Formats: sequence, C-alpha cells, structure tokens
Amino acid sequence: MAFTQTDNYTLHSYECDATGRISIPALMNLMQESANRNADDYGIGSSTLQAQGLGWMLMRFGLTMHQYPRSGQVIRIITYPTFVEKFFVYRDFRVLSDDDTLLASASSTWLVFDTAKRGIIPVPGFIRSLSPPDIADVSDKLPLKPAYQTLDFSETPTNQVTVGWFDIDANQHVNNVVYIRWLLEQLPDTILQTQEIAELDVVYKTETHWREQIDVQNQSTESGTFVHRLTHAETGKEVLLAKTVWRE
Amino acid sequence: MAFTQTDNYTLHSYECDATGRISIPALMNLMQESANRNADDYGIGSSTLQAQGLGWMLMRFGLTMHQYPRSGQVIRIITYPTFVEKFFVYRDFRVLSDDDTLLASASSTWLVFDTAKRGIIPVPGFIRSLSPPDIADVSDKLPLKPAYQTLDFSETPTNQVTVGWFDIDANQHVNNVVYIRWLLEQLPDTILQTQEIAELDVVYKTETHWREQIDVQNQSTESGTFVHRLTHAETGKEVLLAKTVWRE
Repeated sequence: MAFTQTDNYTLHSYECDATGRISIPALMNLMQESANRNADDYGIGSSTLQAQGLGWMLMRFGLTMHQYPRSGQVIRIITYPTFVEKFFVYRDFRVLSDDDTLLASASSTWLVFDTAKRGIIPVPGFIRSLSPPDIADVSDKLPLKPAYQTLDFSETPTNQVTVGWFDIDANQHVNNVVYIRWLLEQLPDTILQTQEIAELDVVYKTETHWREQIDVQNQSTESGTFVHRLTHAETGKEVLLAKTVWRE
Repeated sequence: MAFTQTDNYTLHSYECDATGRISIPALMNLMQESANRNADDYGIGSSTLQAQGLGWMLMRFGLTMHQYPRSGQVIRIITYPTFVEKFFVYRDFRVLSDDDTLLASASSTWLVFDTAKRGIIPVPGFIRSLSPPDIADVSDKLPLKPAYQTLDFSETPTNQVTVGWFDIDANQHVNNVVYIRWLLEQLPDTILQTQEIAELDVVYKTETHWREQIDVQNQSTESGTFVHRLTHAETGKEVLLAKTVWRE
C-alpha cells in the first residue's frame, strides 16, 4: 500500500513572525507533523521504530519558499516517500494555499539509527519494502555532501546557545527545527526585518541533548547568501551545516 | 450577540515536551489563538483595535492543570468573556478532552492600551457594550495584586535572556507565552523532569521588545512552589511576576 499524507492547517498567529508571515521553524514543525502521520500510516512511525530499538534520523533537508502564507490562512501540506535505498529513505513535501498555489517545496533524506549500537544501520527490510506512491512530482535526491560544507569557520565569530527543556522532544534529542531557529536568530537585524528566505539547505550531522552548549556561526559567502555552522562546544563536533539564500 | 469560541486541536508532537505531555507554553499559545478568534467574532480583535490606535494588554493569567493531554490527543478549548468593567475585560478558558474530561481551566484579565498615549485607557464603549455569553461556569476575578508580588528578589541569582526574533509577534512585542518559557527554563532539572505544573499565576507588568535583555529570577518559597520575576535588565523595571505550584 502507498500512502500520501494531506493535512490542512490554519496558521495561528504565534506561528507567524513579526512581519505576520509564517516563520520557517513553524512551517518545518508542521511539515514534520505531517511526515510523522505518513510514517504511521506506513507502519514505520517513531514509536514502531523505538519499540525495535531504532530511530529515524534526518540527514538532509532542502526547502524552497515560493510564497509566504500569513496568519489565519489555511495551508495544505502534502508529503510522501519518494525513494528507498540501502541506507536512505527520501521524502518530499509540497505546501499549497487553499487556491492550490504552490507556496513551498521541500525534500529530505532520512537514515535509520540503532540505539544500542549508537550508529547508522542499513534500512531494515520492513521499511525497505515500502511502496512510494505513484506521483509524478518527485524532487531530485539532495546531494550527500553539498559544496558549502567545506567552508572554513576557524576565524568566524561564535555565539553560544544552551539546549533548553523546550528544545528537546520525547526522544530526549533536540528537535531538528530548533537548530534552524538558532541559526536564524544570529543573523543581522536588517536581514530578518527586510528579507525572507528563498532557499534553505541543511546537513544534519549529529544529535545534541538537554543542557549541552552549542556554538553557532555564520558567514555571508556572497550577497544574500549565508552559510551556517553549529558545533558542539565541548567536543568541537559538527552538529549541523546549512545554507540560506535570502531575497527582498 | 454573545459568542463562545470552541476549537478542537490535535496535539502535534512538537507541542509536547520531553515527557510527551503538552507543554504549558504550547497550551497557552492554543488558548491565545482561540481567544483571538472569539475577540474577532465580537468585533474586538487585535486588528480592529490596532486600526483605532489601540491594543489589548494581558494583565493577569491564572491556570489550573487537572490532567495533561499527550501528543496525538484532540483537545477542545472553549473561551468566552465573563465580565466587562471600566478598566478590565475578563476572559475564561476551559480545556476538555474528547471524552469531556476537564483538563485545564484558566481565567484572565485584559486592559486596553492607547498606542499614542503609551498608556492604559478606560475600556472604550464599543468593547464595554459586549454581552458575555450566559454561562454558569464563570471563574472568580483574579486578584489585581496577589500576595507573592511583594517578595524581595534583591539577593536572588539572575539569568539573563535576550529577546529573539521569533519571540516577538506582529505587534513587535514579546509574545505573552514566551516569558513563561523563559521562567520555566530556569528551574532545576529535577523539577522539569519529574514534576508537572498544577497551578500557574501570572502578573504581566510591561511590554518588552526585540533585542532587549531580560533578567530572570526565581525563589522557592515553600516546597513545590516557586515565585518568578522578570525584569528589564537596563531599566530594572518589572516585566512579569508569577507563581508556579508543582506536583509529582
């Protein structure tokens, strides 16, 4: 059986930012909610995996924003798996307005984590056998190692954040979306006030936990583009790399 | 015309904390969303007030948690105005599960702010004339000056937080709920991990803005009870006082 998840969400005012448009973290949370529901339909939801000592790990996420909905608007999120490979499961997202305008598109790449082995394992058979729906609108797989991830950050100023209680989810890991909030918060005031994200591309590298300290850095590599890096302050281990492209 | 707002919300996983139960900030956001919709029905929503140079200001909020819903559960929030006086408008909230169990009750007291005069004004006629619905379940008015607000904090340790971009709303003020997240984040680990809020009582004193520094303090006045104080770091002006009562 193939499943396509479709959810309608009325945007609440607190899901929008100071400009009244949906905030990227709020949109990503709603996408994740629909992805959870779709995984449940396939019998591969977090609780099923957890019962087997496994977990989903988001590795890559790529978002293109076409148009920003505002508080009170109803958006429709459609999500479905697109490909399954030995190590990776791919998932797409489409966000539409109630008149079917495409507001945003996203694709993502997921790994399966073995809790006892503390490492990635090949996608187990019960997941690997899933049938993606027969949909023409399928994004290309995101590159495993995008070019921006080799940028040197050794001389780049750092802000530090501490993982808070409300930043972690029921798996005791930092919610994937919280990192995006942190890296956006660090940007110059005028960017946040006068520009909007056109593209966001993320490489998730490792999990973090409550009370850990995270170093946040960014560099503007060209006009309207930032590369972001989050590292675990104590170990220096990379947590996340991302690129954002902005427009007026 | 009298209006009672009733909304059903399916709890998303990111609205729940590390224990899997709804987080208090997420619940307060959903309550605020329903309150906005009810105010819109009465023709006294934020945008109507804003067009007249006015704004709503939350002054008092009191919440009693009976039972915590979990991720995936549907909750029903009912809210309605209860009293209107010269300076104050009162609003109640009831939160029910889908089998009608009362999960939470809250009441609140609101003021009207004049943007040009930078001060509180008597409730204008078009608001004062509203008819609260004829409902038997009406909470007592919250006391204007609860006893805990005279506690001395001069020797109490302080954490500082900076107002972030995602902490402010479309009125460029910090969202009322964000303060509650900050004061909860400061509590000892064991309280957050092993206890839950039974009661929350808040006195809102002044607004704050993007990039401002806020000092956060708390004292445990008796076992299972904390009094919290937020002040504007630069001016020392009190932003908020609150009391939380916890249970195992």
